[in-house]
Amino acid sequence: MAVHLAKGARDHLPAAMHRRLQVFETVREVFTRYGFEPLETPAFERIETLTGKYGDEGDKLMYRILKRGAGGQRGEVDLALRYDLTVPLARVVAMHPELRLPFKRWQMQPVWRADRPQKGRFREFYQCDVDTVGAPSMAADAECIAVVHDSLVALGFTDFTVRLNHRALLRAMVEHVGVADQEVGVLVAVDKLDKIGREGVSRELAGRGIAQAAIDGLWALLAETGDGALDLLRNALGEPAHQALDELALVLAHAGDLGVDSARILFDPTLARGLDYYTGPVFETVVTEPKIGSIGGGGRYDGLIGMFGKQAMPAVGVSLGIERILVVMEELGMLPQVRTRTQVLVTVFNDASLGVSQRTATAFRAAGVATQVALKGGKLGKQFKHAAALGVPWVVVVGEREAAAGVVKLKDLRTGDQEELTLSAAVARVQGV
Amino acid sequence: MAVHLAKGARDHLPAAMHRRLQVFETVREVFTRYGFEPLETPAFERIETLTGKYGDEGDKLMYRILKRGAGGQRGEVDLALRYDLTVPLARVVAMHPELRLPFKRWQMQPVWRADRPQKGRFREFYQCDVDTVGAPSMAADAECIAVVHDSLVALGFTDFTVRLNHRALLRAMVEHVGVADQEVGVLVAVDKLDKIGREGVSRELAGRGIAQAAIDGLWALLAETGDGALDLLRNALGEPAHQALDELALVLAHAGDLGVDSARILFDPTLARGLDYYTGPVFETVVTEPKIGSIGGGGRYDGLIGMFGKQAMPAVGVSLGIERILVVMEELGMLPQVRTRTQVLVTVFNDASLGVSQRTATAFRAAGVATQVALKGGKLGKQFKHAAALGVPWVVVVGEREAAAGVVKLKDLRTGDQEELTLSAAVARVQGV
Repeated sequence: MAVHLAKGARDHLPAAMHRRLQVFETVREVFTRYGFEPLETPAFERIETLTGKYGDEGDKLMYRILKRGAGGQRGEVDLALRYDLTVPLARVVAMHPELRLPFKRWQMQPVWRADRPQKGRFREFYQCDVDTVGAPSMAADAECIAVVHDSLVALGFTDFTVRLNHRALLRAMVEHVGVADQEVGVLVAVDKLDKIGREGVSRELAGRGIAQAAIDGLWALLAETGDGALDLLRNALGEPAHQALDELALVLAHAGDLGVDSARILFDPTLARGLDYYTGPVFETVVTEPKIGSIGGGGRYDGLIGMFGKQAMPAVGVSLGIERILVVMEELGMLPQVRTRTQVLVTVFNDASLGVSQRTATAFRAAGVATQVALKGGKLGKQFKHAAALGVPWVVVVGEREAAAGVVKLKDLRTGDQEELTLSAAVARVQGV
Repeated sequence: MAVHLAKGARDHLPAAMHRRLQVFETVREVFTRYGFEPLETPAFERIETLTGKYGDEGDKLMYRILKRGAGGQRGEVDLALRYDLTVPLARVVAMHPELRLPFKRWQMQPVWRADRPQKGRFREFYQCDVDTVGAPSMAADAECIAVVHDSLVALGFTDFTVRLNHRALLRAMVEHVGVADQEVGVLVAVDKLDKIGREGVSRELAGRGIAQAAIDGLWALLAETGDGALDLLRNALGEPAHQALDELALVLAHAGDLGVDSARILFDPTLARGLDYYTGPVFETVVTEPKIGSIGGGGRYDGLIGMFGKQAMPAVGVSLGIERILVVMEELGMLPQVRTRTQVLVTVFNDASLGVSQRTATAFRAAGVATQVALKGGKLGKQFKHAAALGVPWVVVVGEREAAAGVVKLKDLRTGDQEELTLSAAVARVQGV
């Protein structure tokens, strides 16, 4: 029987898992430090919970599950796999009115999208989100930026920029140039600026039937970034833009108070971010050196939870692109190459001495030292090679004679040094005590 | 829009998640101590990888995923959700001949079965397995028993017993009483002994057309447990049972050398364990006081991996019933009720003092203290109540005046004590330094 993985799926073998667990743990620690609490939701949701939440594209890429029993035989579908972590959060909040607000949660779970697989893009991948539900304050938006900032710092990144914009500014701009009815189209086109450049965006806008004057008007509004852009838009757009600009000023001030260097945040009116459920500030973190692009973004979505619940509920969140971060850190050698957590391999002379080896391993384990017994036996040299191939740093040799004398031979495979020590001294040596 | 969970699915809200994460971490630590390495496999596998591996029942309970695009519209299926962690492991080993043997891996991931939901039984639940592939030695079987033993001890269980049997003994028994062609039926019936009792099993055996003499013969072989049973079967079954009995003696000896009290392991010839891919020793851990039944079991399955790969491969593993353990520990109050990991809530007087509160929170976070800022504002009394409701132990009050003086008010909500301290003294107090 030939065996294959499902298309676009991956196994995470031990070496990769050690890296993943380390990165997940680092990020989790930052999330916790900001007072976010853990949540997990099921892999599948009722199909009606997910359908229509991610646009036509999302509905197409969703994995749908056949009903069990007769319905399934007729091709009926009742469930779909999680497509992101935000819609399930909205469902949880709507279903649990007893949750104290603001509800701050982190969530790290896989999601599934039947996207065209390509380098570094998979059909199963982890998302890693924090969201605050029930807080209209811009302090919550700033916390999202600060959490991503602190996560990247904790992971060892030094050169990155947060791009910041406000969805209401984009609306005010399209109104200002007279194409308010084309808001989504403009947003989709401008969102591609990084990929297809200014000319490409202009072509796409023209292709959507937007007059050249309006296109020129848009580029005039999008001419600057940073403080200059804030001034330009305040003057050009007038009152319809003031609330959004005031909110951005608050986000910037709060982020500073949360320890984010203001030089790291750039107001960029061209930042669109695809998902159309955003209603307020949107942000995206870009690693600039090396130039590896966006590794996380989010924004405020005050309308989504109201789709499930009885009432509107402010919410803001950010998703850290953990899979991209893992690829980048791997490529840049930012992660220690941990091949194993096993510290000691205890060799086995022969069947008769297996018990001695096991009791020795038990002593190491009792002290918290991760220890393997050479289960395969065979020549001692082969057992040493096995330990080296696994990446285990220490090998213990012990037979009846050593056991009777209360000693073991301890070899450090990194240096080649070997010593005969009492068992407790050997344990202490490995522990670095 | 009404919102519901998928049938048999659960959300794990923060309080539950804190318990789950703690138990997972404890168990993971034990797995690592025994030299098992982490593995994750995708949520879905190609349908042909899973079909036919879990009997008719399994095929019926499996969640099947529609093809994307045209095939799905015709009701075609190409994937199914993970049903256990053992078959994916077998696939991984078959696909990765470069893996060094023995390959020792742990895996903790959800699986999905469309079983009838009932109290404590869900359609999505975590499995938590260790397996050793490529080691024919009974030392590997004993390690599985020791890992479960150490996990339960680490979690705080004190009264539990490991039941041990050997699949080849069951075969020798049915041969001995002349119903070798009914081996699976006998196994299925005997497996229900705990649930339906001896008379129920006898009725079921008779219903399967097994003669009364054979049934009586079986009960005679199954009359004892422990050392008495080992002797009884060695005498009664003769040579066909010797290898299995010798292997069990080795498992018992090795488990002792790995630190498992021999009084905790009981040879029980009635232990069948349902899955028909077992080929050697099988074991099951039963918590005896309080009487809560099986919370984990496994065995040797030397044939399964050969179904995927080019060659047979010995393997043995054990699954810790982590969901059952969580329910039991919760019911028995064995888990601390952690409602939040947040240590400090910093109150906010008003919009103007928000920055002071944020900078104060930043100082706590920089010292590694999990800290929230009261994002909702409002009256101070309400903010204190919010902290208490969340279960946050410390509240910090800080305004412009305190900030200028370099102090904060720190209140311990557990005692009601409040003090004015310098910021660094307050941080140290919370850290317990």
